[in-house]
Formats: sequence, C-alpha cells, structure tokens
Amino acid sequence: MKELEDRIRQDGIVREGNVLKVDSFLNHKCDVALYDQMGAEWARLFEGKKVDKILTIESSGIGIACVAATHFHNAPVVFARKTESKNLDGEQYRTQIKSYTKGRTYEVIVAKRFLERGEHVIILDDFLAMGCALNGLLEICEEAGVVVEGIGIAIEKGFQPGGKSLRERGYQVESLAIVSGMNAETGEIDFA
Amino acid sequence: MKELEDRIRQDGIVREGNVLKVDSFLNHKCDVALYDQMGAEWARLFEGKKVDKILTIESSGIGIACVAATHFHNAPVVFARKTESKNLDGEQYRTQIKSYTKGRTYEVIVAKRFLERGEHVIILDDFLAMGCALNGLLEICEEAGVVVEGIGIAIEKGFQPGGKSLRERGYQVESLAIVSGMNAETGEIDFA
Repeated sequence: MKELEDRIRQDGIVREGNVLKVDSFLNHKCDVALYDQMGAEWARLFEGKKVDKILTIESSGIGIACVAATHFHNAPVVFARKTESKNLDGEQYRTQIKSYTKGRTYEVIVAKRFLERGEHVIILDDFLAMGCALNGLLEICEEAGVVVEGIGIAIEKGFQPGGKSLRERGYQVESLAIVSGMNAETGEIDFA
Repeated sequence: MKELEDRIRQDGIVREGNVLKVDSFLNHKCDVALYDQMGAEWARLFEGKKVDKILTIESSGIGIACVAATHFHNAPVVFARKTESKNLDGEQYRTQIKSYTKGRTYEVIVAKRFLERGEHVIILDDFLAMGCALNGLLEICEEAGVVVEGIGIAIEKGFQPGGKSLRERGYQVESLAIVSGMNAETGEIDFA
C-alpha cells in the first residue's frame, strides 16, 4: 500500500538491531486517517471472506483493528489482553508469547465467551516479524474452534521468518508494507 | 447517552466491590458501532472546541479514542503507554498512576514530541471512578503546556469522587453514562 510505504519512508526511524520505529503515526501517536485507509485496503484484500469478528492483541493492534472494523460492517473487535494474573478459572484461553523486541515472554488471554466455535475471524496487527504474537493468537483460535479467514498486517519485516512461515501453513497474510531491508546508518528502508 | 445506558443495563455485570464488568462491549470485546455513536455524541458535546489532538491511555481507551477521532476531523490520537522500563533520557513525560481495580501503581509515559506546547486536546477514556488515570494524564498535559478542552468518559461511577473533583477544578467532563449506584446481589444498575 503506497500511502503506508511512503509514510514509513518519511517518518519511520531505523535503529540498530532491525528496529523500525513508527511511533509517530502507527503505535503511540496514531494517524487515524491512515488507519482508515488501511482498513479500506484490508477490506479490499479480504473481499468475499466471511468476517464475524476481528481478533487483535493489545496494545498497538487495538486502534488499528477498531478503525478497520468500520470497513467490515462494524464486526466486533476482540483484543487479546496481556496479563500477569494467575487466573485459573478456565474461562479464558491463554497462551505465552515471546517478544524479541522486549526480550521477555508474556501471557495473553481471551475470554472464552468472546470466541464462538465455528465463527469466522480475521486477525489484524501492526507488526509481523518472527510471528510470535500471531502464533499465539492462532493457537487461541485453534483451541476456540474458529475459522481464521486471513491475517492483515500493517508492516511485515520480510527479512524475518514470520510471514513466510504463516503463508507456508496456508494462511492468507496481507501485509500492507513489506520491508525487505533497512539500514540504521543511512536510515534507508527498502520494500519488497 | 441512552444507547450506552441501555447497553450497560443489558450486558453489564455487577460484582462485589463496586466492580462493573463491561468487557462484552467496551473493553475486551469492542462494539465498534457503539464506539462510533459515542464518538458522535462527544463531538456534539464538545462542539465549537478546538481539538488538535486526542489523548487517551492504554489499553481500553485506544479503540474508543481512535473511532471517536473520526468525528473530530481525524484528529491524531496519542495514547499514554504503561511501562516498566527505566528510561531516563528525558524524552518522555512520565507519571505514576494508582489503579484501585488492580491494587497497584504503574507508570505511564508519553513521548514529549507528541504533545506540542499550546495545542488543544481532549482526553477520552472508558472509565472514571477515583480519577487517578485522568489526574495522571492531566499532570502530563500541564507539564507539556497543552490546553485541555475537555474530558470525555464512557462510564463514570458517580458515587466515587473522580468526576466531582475534576468538575470542581473547572474541567468540562462529559460522561456518556453516570452510574449512581449498583447492586451486586440483584445486578441492578442506576443512572444519574
């Protein structure tokens, strides 16, 4: 999606260790008009798919998913919550997610009553790199018995294995910008 | 706002200790059509105000604020981030927020470059009870030198002191539903 690539080139900041900072429009300050364009593009890419619900993960996915939902007939958005609580009441799907950026593992939960067996969902998130967050969400989807119609990503780091692995497993992964390489010294960012 | 009160009556769950669970439409599963109505109502209530930016706090505020922003000419949304990192580089406004619900204090940050001195903001959030989160955001606003044009809240617990205190300090607080009392035994919820 040209608007997103242009914006990443213009405002993205490349840091050592393959870090791409896009907090000025995507995940701290939020450009809602851009979110709306992204939602329209995902709606085009997933046209014809049944979408009962949109699944995402806190925090950066929430705003993107909620604005995008307006392009999916206001499908309800469910966001997986990060938690530290040891709630073992069985009312929640739980999975462990490793964050390479933050160097730690955290647990996310989704209340069981918010994913109904047989319903069709798309998963939306801001970033795809190693694919850890998505694998966690997919585990929850499998346990819940929902049909994953597709995965929409704002920015995929194409030089990391997450996207390739998910596509090999048969998922329709629609990344609006795929970064093929970036250079922390020059600030240059290339797209696939 | 009648639609929100009706929805709270229908789907809200009252628990001991003045806990009102609204996770089936407001802050875990998100009813985006309702968010849109809420945004339209805040736009009406804050009509004529200059709104350069919308400030909120992760996580539950983000979706609400991003959808509401579409009713404020797509004003950018900045959300305060909860953090555990000890970043002392001076590039962030920081404040401590006490959570009565969770029984602990956490720190939130806003990058300084995302709040510009003299700009006009409204603050949006899902809940107002003791007012701790809002007081934290207001401290950040004061430090940043931004003008707070108003505070929009989905659900205010009118029997707790946060709203009264903010209004006494001169803020225009627009709560779309003000709960005046609730009963964990009967499940009854009254509105002001």
